Amino acid sequence: MKLYFAGSIRGGRADAALYARVIRHLKERHSVLTEHIGAPSAFPTVEEGMTDREIWLQDMAWLRESDAVIAECSTPSLGVGYELATAQALGKPVHIFFNENRGFLSAMLAGDPYYRIHLYRDEAELFRALDQALETL
Amino acid sequence: MKLYFAGSIRGGRADAALYARVIRHLKERHSVLTEHIGAPSAFPTVEEGMTDREIWLQDMAWLRESDAVIAECSTPSLGVGYELATAQALGKPVHIFFNENRGFLSAMLAGDPYYRIHLYRDEAELFRALDQALETL
Repeated sequence: MKLYFAGSIRGGRADAALYARVIRHLKERHSVLTEHIGAPSAFPTVEEGMTDREIWLQDMAWLRESDAVIAECSTPSLGVGYELATAQALGKPVHIFFNENRGFLSAMLAGDPYYRIHLYRDEAELFRALDQALETL
Repeated sequence: MKLYFAGSIRGGRADAALYARVIRHLKERHSVLTEHIGAPSAFPTVEEGMTDREIWLQDMAWLRESDAVIAECSTPSLGVGYELATAQALGKPVHIFFNENRGFLSAMLAGDPYYRIHLYRDEAELFRALDQALETL
């Protein structure tokens, strides 16, 4: 499957290393279109020298091409919120993962019955939830 | 006009007092459906005792009812990103305000030609941009 992994970039890179581990895990059996989101830099290399319009066009093309969206939502991000609403408009299955130790997930996501929400408390629980989500796709 | 003001709640309340000043300004000549977003508490009173589903239903009803969306995006927020993509799907005019001193606005918003983006550096500039945006509505 082609997966669109969504995680924060300009909203904050506190979870960049976690994104990288999730992406590596997903790539064991699937293709991840947005692999750059796990890059260690503040602004992933693929976006360097690209205009905002070019980044948006690229990401929207990947979103349309994807079979499903996997979003790690523990760091708040305008772009991820936008991507999840857009994924819904495109009819893509969306699985959202949120670390409960970080507060409360947005009511716009948690309250919208379209999304499959997975709350977790540690990384082992996250990876189990990821595997279970992938099995349903 | 009926305005839907969008600002961060669970993403962080660092700008709650600013939201209150923007809402007070908007209310001089318009009606603001989401006035609770300027409340000083971490979780605005109107949401106390409501489930996530009830909050989402309420906000989606207000979004459909609104004539335009005014979003202050300096604090990253999943919910605001979701609301802005949904506002676009509903064909609502959307004006986004972002304080340049706070970093870079999401490429998903800055790169999407649908939105009117207003960058500002201080509150006087924000209020001038707000007035200009309101005149175009």
